[in-house]
Parts: sequence; structure tokens; C-alpha cells
Amino acid sequence: MKFGGTSVANLDRIRIVARRVKNEVAAGHSVAVVVSAMAGTTDQLVKWVEEASPLHDAREYDTVVSSGEQVTAGLLALTLQNMGVSARSWLGWQVPFRTSNIHGSARIEDIDTRQMISRLEDNIVCVMAGFQGISDDNRITTLGRGGSDTSAVALAAALDADRCDIYTDVEGVYTTDPRIVPAARKLEKITYEEMLEMASLGAKVLQTRSVAMAMNHGVRLQVLSSFTDRPGTLVVDEDEIVEKQVVSGIAYARNEAKITLVGVENTPGIAGKIFGPLADGHVNVDMIIQNISEDGKKTDLTFTVPEADVDKAKQLLETSGHVKYAKLMSDKDVVKISVIGVGMRSHTGVAARMFESLAEKGINIQVISTSEIKISVLIAAEYNELAVRALHTVFGLDSDEDA
Amino acid sequence: MKFGGTSVANLDRIRIVARRVKNEVAAGHSVAVVVSAMAGTTDQLVKWVEEASPLHDAREYDTVVSSGEQVTAGLLALTLQNMGVSARSWLGWQVPFRTSNIHGSARIEDIDTRQMISRLEDNIVCVMAGFQGISDDNRITTLGRGGSDTSAVALAAALDADRCDIYTDVEGVYTTDPRIVPAARKLEKITYEEMLEMASLGAKVLQTRSVAMAMNHGVRLQVLSSFTDRPGTLVVDEDEIVEKQVVSGIAYARNEAKITLVGVENTPGIAGKIFGPLADGHVNVDMIIQNISEDGKKTDLTFTVPEADVDKAKQLLETSGHVKYAKLMSDKDVVKISVIGVGMRSHTGVAARMFESLAEKGINIQVISTSEIKISVLIAAEYNELAVRALHTVFGLDSDEDA
Repeated sequence: MKFGGTSVANLDRIRIVARRVKNEVAAGHSVAVVVSAMAGTTDQLVKWVEEASPLHDAREYDTVVSSGEQVTAGLLALTLQNMGVSARSWLGWQVPFRTSNIHGSARIEDIDTRQMISRLEDNIVCVMAGFQGISDDNRITTLGRGGSDTSAVALAAALDADRCDIYTDVEGVYTTDPRIVPAARKLEKITYEEMLEMASLGAKVLQTRSVAMAMNHGVRLQVLSSFTDRPGTLVVDEDEIVEKQVVSGIAYARNEAKITLVGVENTPGIAGKIFGPLADGHVNVDMIIQNISEDGKKTDLTFTVPEADVDKAKQLLETSGHVKYAKLMSDKDVVKISVIGVGMRSHTGVAARMFESLAEKGINIQVISTSEIKISVLIAAEYNELAVRALHTVFGLDSDEDA
Repeated sequence: MKFGGTSVANLDRIRIVARRVKNEVAAGHSVAVVVSAMAGTTDQLVKWVEEASPLHDAREYDTVVSSGEQVTAGLLALTLQNMGVSARSWLGWQVPFRTSNIHGSARIEDIDTRQMISRLEDNIVCVMAGFQGISDDNRITTLGRGGSDTSAVALAAALDADRCDIYTDVEGVYTTDPRIVPAARKLEKITYEEMLEMASLGAKVLQTRSVAMAMNHGVRLQVLSSFTDRPGTLVVDEDEIVEKQVVSGIAYARNEAKITLVGVENTPGIAGKIFGPLADGHVNVDMIIQNISEDGKKTDLTFTVPEADVDKAKQLLETSGHVKYAKLMSDKDVVKISVIGVGMRSHTGVAARMFESLAEKGINIQVISTSEIKISVLIAAEYNELAVRALHTVFGLDSDEDA
């Protein structure tokens, strides 16, 4: 069971968490719990670190910011004990939860579960502080923001758990954002691949890395709310889903920006000259299209980068000196809309239906990219809600109640 | 250098601390620093623990409350780095700072200073989180409230430091409480023994345990303010003090209470029957007097206990059943006044002068106790200020400026 920051935001909420844990124990399960810091705590600690030293030593950053999970792990163990449930806390270094020494975004290397397994066999609830580990030079490491999801999945895999329940402030994974489409439905099940596409496209229910890890280790995930008692969404292998939908969900990502290079000289290796410097500068290029002029001598190149990296990308292109182009244009007022579903593998015509629906609404598609289970288009940001609602209806995702 | 909670209460104060450390480094010294948690943090953490579980597991208590020092240790290391001073933080378990497993009030057993010494040789400032250690079963321990003073003295002893500077919010040790006697003087030097009596008598500048440890290991202590640049008070061996004052200071303790048993049957072993149950109940008995009636068959017994333990003491005496007495009386409106000075060893007449001065002011002495370097009397609480001021003047402690 993993509980996020809003679920452990204060002692009253920690008591609610403890009652959920107690219920699982009463149902005969062995339970390990992973907790985040109280909501707001990590932000405060990060702010202090940045104020103390703008160019901070990541080892000291990790020492400071990992303290939030230490507090909630201890408090949850105490609250459980007070309810008559045997429990003890573990910090990353006590497990030990071994990681690489890339402080601030460490990779998990090895989890020694011997102590915990012995306690679980004695019916003791194991409460682990999320987000943190220990490097081989005995310093505290952290896994990056949102890393507690990854801690939980990694622990579930190491303990060979039957399930990893991620309690959060939403009731599960929806066919799309309910704030935009009131008819959005909660999915009973979703595949890892679909969840990965959802997560990376801005449906921030689970950290992408934790989903990839769950997929690789076959950990059955459940996303559910710590504030209601309704069942959540199970994230599982494709073969566990009997009746596959062609399309499972519509996702959107607002934090994209489009860059267009007009009149690029079309010489061999030009793509490498453009995207090489961007890769070296750690700018993530997502969608790419290229139009070649009639005579084949000039080309227009359009691609997307994270909105936050636009200026950096422009600077890298302008200063690299290897690329000749007539004009550089950028546009932040774009949104990426994606139709996602493992059913697309066996069903054709999804793309055509998507493009048609958008055309009917008068929405111009600027860039297209596809994967096996996803079709994404870049459109003007102002059409976001209109496009998501239209596609949600067209692909039969509207709930019966509200349809 | 040890900095208490008010000295690291926020980032601005941590910067002041860092500048002090930087100055010491610039003067050519190798510096290890011990920090407390930000003022108020430990109180908040203790409150959460008590709310989570009134009868709390001390191991989880230690896990939670030790997090405050973790934050300040990291932030001070970062602030030093930002000022161009090489620094790194150490938590108790990283040193390792080994203690007994009496959680909440652990005893220090062994400090492995090899890593720190190697860093100090490389001119790196070592910042250690105070108050915390690690037990032999790999759990975080704490040394009890105010334990960072003890951490600092223990580390100074282990590193064989030339001096241990305790920065606090007062400028040093005074001849008495300046809030009561404006003419109180800051002492340039004081002996360990005197400081021990001062500390245990309510002059809360240093944790008693840290003074005893400094005395046992010959660590030269300095108490000084982190808010001014004036020299503080050195706590040293008696032979370092050339011109010894007969009396160094006047201390008072308000948290005492008096219990009187009237008409106790005066049989052999009666003292054991009275004080045995109190000792078993962990009630600390301080001053004791006994008056025997003329026929020798009855005795009145008066003694003092900490104010907080009066009810417990009464209950223990009433229920023990071994002691027969006519009446039990208790009085919380008392104060213990002490005249302290190593010079008393070689000077007589201090007690007589003390009793005379109090008599002159019309103050009735209820109980007296003495040690080699201290004379204490119990008086009615309302005479506290009057008595302290009178004794401060009589023993020549008033400062020249204000006298």
C-alpha cells in the first residue's frame, strides 16, 4: 500500500490511512506500506535548499529533502501501534534500499528484504519511507520528485507482493480528464502500455517510471482513492483484460511547444546536425515532421520540445552553427492530443476516424505522430477541450449515465 | 562549534552561523560543527508523536524527532558551500555515533571519527546533526532533550579538539540570573564543578550531562552568544583559574517541593522504609532533614522532591504501608537558593555569612544542605528575588558598573 502526500497531510489523515492498513491486516494480508512526506513538506525543504545554495550539492539536497518521509513513516508506525497493530518503520538506509549515487534522481539497484520478510512473517506491518535510498558511499539518495510511487513498486517487486495499491487523491484512471469531460468514466482495468502513454502524456496519476518498473517486473498495480471506499483501476498485463476496447482513453499534454525551421538546406545528415546539439543539451524532442520542397533542395522541419525548453532549444540551434535555415519560428500555444488503446494493434481505421472528427470540428492538425497503441496530434491550444470532448464521444468512451 | 535551535532558527540565522564558521576556518582552524534543529521544530515533532500515540514506541519517537537536526545539518553544509567553504553533513548513523539502545535517552558508547578526521585533514568542515546516534540494532537513537550539547562535547572529546564552543542565545555564564539581579556579571571563567552545580540548579545554559562529560574528558568548553561578538565564559579545570573567588555565583531552583512527615515512629531502618519506595518509583529526593522529639520516640522528617513528582511521592508513601506517621504535609511554594564556589574548599564562614544575610532580611530557612562547593537553603518562594539579590551583594558579585 502506498500513500501520497495528500493522504498523509496531517495526523487525522494518517489515522484514516492506518485504519485502511488495519482493515487489510484484519482481512489476513501481510502488508508493507510506503509513505510520502506530508503534502507541502518536500516543497518547503526544496525551497530551503535552493535558498541556502542555488547551485546545490545534490548529496546535501537529498539529506535535507528525505527527512519528510522519515517523519511520516515514524508517525504511521506509531498510529498503527496505537490502534493495536504491530508496526515498525524503515528508512531507506535501514532496509537497505540500495541505489546508484546519482543524487536527486538515483536508480534503484538492490533491495534487501530479509529483515522485512521476517517481520511480515511475524504479522508486523512494515512501513517504509518512500522516495529515498542509500548509495554505496553511505549517503542518502532520493529517486526524484514523485519517487515514492517507484519506491512502492520496487518494494512490491522485491517482496513478490500480490498487488501494489497506490492510494492517491483521485479514484482511479479515467478515460480522460473529468474536469474537461464530465462524461469521463473510471476504467476498471488498463494495460501497463496504455498507462505508460497516459502517464507520460500528462495524466499525472502515477509516475511514469513506476509504471515501467511495474510492467518489467509484472507487479499488479491498483490506483485508488484514500478518501473513498470505491474500487480503483487495476493496471495489469494485456492478457488479463478480456474484452479489449479499441480506444481506452484520450490524453492531452499542454506543456508542449512547436519549433519550425523554414528553408533548411536539404543535405545528407541534416537531421543529425539539427537534433544532435539538442540531444547534447538534454532537450527532449518529441514529434517531428519534414516537408521537402518540390525541387528537393530545401526542407521545412517542424518538431516539438517541452515548453520549458523552448528558449534553450532556440539558443542551441542558433549557436551550433552547423545548420543553415531561412527562419526559426516557435509556438507555445499548442496542445498534444492522444488517442490511446492496445486494441489499435488489431483494429485499423482509428487514425482516419480521429482526423475526420477533428476536421468536422474545424480543427487543423499541425503535426502527427503514432506508435503501436497511440495516435497523437498537435493542435492549437484553444481547441483542447473541444477536441478531447469530440474524440471521447466518437470512440464510445462517454459513460452511459451521462451520455 | 555547537549551535542551538535559536541560532539556526531560519536561513538568515544559518547564514550568520556559516559566517562564524568561515571566520574560524579563515583563522586556520579545523572545524567540526554540531547543530540542533530549528527552534520549535523538535517541539512540533514531539507533539505529533504524542498525538499519534500517547504511549509511544521510543524507537519510532527517535525516528521522527531526529529529523529536525538532519535538516539543519544539510542546510548548514549547503550554506557553507555557497560561501566557498568545503563542507559536508553527517547524520548520527553515518558517523557512526554509536549509543546504547535506550531510545529517547541513549548513552553514547563510541564515536568512529576516522571519516571526519580524514575530511578535517582535507580542510573540509564537518557538520554533524546533534542529539542523535545509532543503536547496535541499526535504529536511530536520541540523547534526550538538549542532547545536542552532549553530542558536541562527546565529538570534541573524540576528535581531541582544542575547545568546544557552545553558541547559544546568552552571552555566557552569569554570577546569577540577570533578569533578577541587573548587577549580575558575566564570568570570564568557571570550573566544571561550579558549572555542574549551576546547571543542575536551574541556570539552564548547558545541559548538565554535557558538563559532566566535558569534566571527565577534560574538554575545554566555551559558552558564548551567536548573536554578538563578545567573548563568552570558559568552563575549565580548577587549576586554570588563577584568582579564585570564594563564591562564583548564586543559583536558584523554583521547581522544588517540600514534603514533611510529622510524628514518624523513630525505629531503626525508618529512613530506608521512607526513601526506598520513592527511589523505586524514580522520585528524586534532594534535601533531607530530621528532627527527633525530646523522648526520642517520634521524629519529623522533611525532604524535597521535584515539584512535578509531589503527587506521585505522596501516593507512594501512602500506599507503601511500611511507614507510620501522624500527618503528611506538602508545600510547592518553596525555592532552593544556592551559593556556589570552589573557593569554599579553602575558605570557611561562607555558610554563616549566608544564614546571617538571610536572617537580616527576615527570611526563614526551612532546610539546609551542603556539598564541598555549595550551600543550599530552602525558603518560601516569595522571598526568591530578595534573597538572591542580597546574597549577590554580600558575596561581592555585583558588577562595578552597576554597583
